[in-house]
Amino acid sequence: MSPPIYGKVALIGLGLIASSMALAMRRGGLAGEVVGTDHTPETRRVAAELGYCDEIVETARQAVEGADLVVLCVPVGAMGALAADIGPHLKPGSTLSDVGSVKGAVVQAVGPHVPADVHFIPGHPVAGTEHSGPRSGFAELFDNRWCLLITPQDGSGAEAGADMGLGTGDRDADDAALARLRALWEGMGANVETMDADRHDLVLAVTSHAPHLIAYTMVGVADDLRRVTDSEVIKYSAAGFRDFTRIAASDPTMWRDVFLSNKDATLEILGRFTEELFALQRAIRQGDGAHLHDYFTRTRAIRRGIIDAGQDTDAPNFGRASGRAPR
Amino acid sequence: MSPPIYGKVALIGLGLIASSMALAMRRGGLAGEVVGTDHTPETRRVAAELGYCDEIVETARQAVEGADLVVLCVPVGAMGALAADIGPHLKPGSTLSDVGSVKGAVVQAVGPHVPADVHFIPGHPVAGTEHSGPRSGFAELFDNRWCLLITPQDGSGAEAGADMGLGTGDRDADDAALARLRALWEGMGANVETMDADRHDLVLAVTSHAPHLIAYTMVGVADDLRRVTDSEVIKYSAAGFRDFTRIAASDPTMWRDVFLSNKDATLEILGRFTEELFALQRAIRQGDGAHLHDYFTRTRAIRRGIIDAGQDTDAPNFGRASGRAPR
Repeated sequence: MSPPIYGKVALIGLGLIASSMALAMRRGGLAGEVVGTDHTPETRRVAAELGYCDEIVETARQAVEGADLVVLCVPVGAMGALAADIGPHLKPGSTLSDVGSVKGAVVQAVGPHVPADVHFIPGHPVAGTEHSGPRSGFAELFDNRWCLLITPQDGSGAEAGADMGLGTGDRDADDAALARLRALWEGMGANVETMDADRHDLVLAVTSHAPHLIAYTMVGVADDLRRVTDSEVIKYSAAGFRDFTRIAASDPTMWRDVFLSNKDATLEILGRFTEELFALQRAIRQGDGAHLHDYFTRTRAIRRGIIDAGQDTDAPNFGRASGRAPR
Repeated sequence: MSPPIYGKVALIGLGLIASSMALAMRRGGLAGEVVGTDHTPETRRVAAELGYCDEIVETARQAVEGADLVVLCVPVGAMGALAADIGPHLKPGSTLSDVGSVKGAVVQAVGPHVPADVHFIPGHPVAGTEHSGPRSGFAELFDNRWCLLITPQDGSGAEAGADMGLGTGDRDADDAALARLRALWEGMGANVETMDADRHDLVLAVTSHAPHLIAYTMVGVADDLRRVTDSEVIKYSAAGFRDFTRIAASDPTMWRDVFLSNKDATLEILGRFTEELFALQRAIRQGDGAHLHDYFTRTRAIRRGIIDAGQDTDAPNFGRASGRAPR
C-alpha cells in the first residue's frame, strides 16, 4: 500500500459524510491519523464507540491542532462561526476544506477567517442517503460519485482567489494542495471535478436544491390532505410518491441551510419550474394530448443519459427487494 | 398445486403489465391457458418469441373467444373503442377487467359496452417500472404491491353498479366473480383492496399522478436550461434529480392518457401543491428558517411509515450498486 496522502486529518461534525469519509480513508489507507469531533456529546460518544476515527476529541480547536487537512462537515449555516473559532489554530501550510452543499455562502463565511498560509479549498461530494447522524456512514458512499472542488474563477488568477481566502497566493503551492486533496477524494472512490463557486451553486440548484424543495412540498401536500388518509398515501406510494419521500427525508437542518444560503439560484430555478408546470396544467385542462406526449417523450432521453453515465441502475425498482433485471 | 383459478385468460395489449401478469400466472399455475394479443405486429412477434403466453393471436376478438377472464392492458384512452369491439363477443358469465391507472374514465368508457351477463370489475395494480413494452415484464412485479379492484360505491348496491356496467345485478354471482379475481391477484403476489372509482382517482392523483407531472416538469426544466449543460445535469444527478428522472421516464402515451382522463383530481392536487410551494418559496425569500425546518421535519415521518409498511427499503441508494446497508 502506498503511504498515506495526509498525516493527520481532522473531521469536524460527525454525520453521514464525515463518518463515511473516515471509513473510506481507512479502507484506502489514505490518512496517517483521523481525529474527529462534534459539538454534541452524544454524537462523540457514538462515534467513539463505533471507532471509525483514531481519536475523538471534545473541541474543534483540539481537533485541528497539527492537522494537515481539516474538513468542516457541519451545516452550512454553522461554518462561519466554526471557522472564526479554529482559524488562528490552523497549521501553516495545511489545507482547510468542507463538504457543504452550497459553495458561494461558504466561501463568504469561511474565507475571511482563513490565515494567508493555509490553503482553503471548498469541496462538495455529490452523494448522500436519506440517513443522517454518526451511525449512518459507510465506506462506499463516494464510490463512482462526483466530488466538486472549488477553485477561483478562470482568469481571476491566484491573487484574486487569495482575496476570497481561496489559495495562499503562491500558485505552485496552491496547485500542489489541490492535487493532494483531489488524490484523497479519488482514493475514497470519487471522481473529481473543479469549478468556481457560482457555477457550482447554479448547477446544484438544478440537480439538487430545486428537486429537494419540490419533493418536500409534494410530501407536505399529501400529509395535509385530510380527504386522503395517511395509510392510503403510504400503501399506494409505490406509484411514484415513494421516490419523493426518500428525497424529502433528508436532514432538515442541512436543507434549511442549503435553501437559505443558495437563495437566488434556487428561487430562479423554482420560478422556471412553476412557469413550466403552469404550461403543462393548461395542456391538461385544455386536453392538449400532443403537447403532453411530446414533453414526456423528451424527458425520457435524459434518463437514458444518466444510466449510460453510470449514475443509476435501470433495474426495476432500483433493485429493490421485489424486482429483478428485465430480460 | 391447486387447480387454476381461471380456465382461459385473455390479455389484450402486451406491455409491462400484461407480460408481467403472464409470467406471474405461469409462476403460480393460476390459469389453464393464457392468450395474448396486441394491435402492433412487432409486439406480437416479440411476445411469441419470448413465449410467456400459451398463444398469441392477431385480434382482440379472437383473444376473447371463450375466455373466462379478459384483461384490457392498453392505454386508458384506447379502452372505449376496444370494449365496443369485443363487447358482443365476451362469453356469458365471464369477467372483464383492466389495469388502467385511472378508473372513473374507464368505467364511463367501457361500462356501456359490457353485456348484462358479464362481470365488469376494473382493476389497477399499483406497480410499475420505468420500462415499457413486451420485453419489460417479470413475474415478481406485483409481489407485495397493492392491486385495487373497483366496486360500486357503498350503499349504491348491486343495481346501481349494474347501471354503470359494474356487476350483473346478481349480487351472489358478482361477489363470486370478485372473489375469483381477488384470488388471481393474490396468487400473482399482490395485496388486494376494493374501493370505488372516485376514491381511487383522488388517492392516485396524490400518490401517483401529481408526482409524475411534477417530475416530468422538473426534468423538462433541467433540459431547457441552456446555462447548465446536459452533461452537468447527468453527472451530478445523484444529488436528488436522478430519482425524478426515473419517474419521468415512464411511458409517454400511458401518462398522456392518465392526465387527460383524471383531469379534475390531478389539477386540484396540483393547485394545492403550487400553493404550498409558493409558501415555501416565500419562506426562503424571507429567510424564515424555522418554517423550513418545521416543514422538513414533518415530511420525514411519512417516509418512515412507507418503510415500515414494506413499500420501500431504507438501504442507501435503494441498494444501488455502490451502497450497502448502514451499520
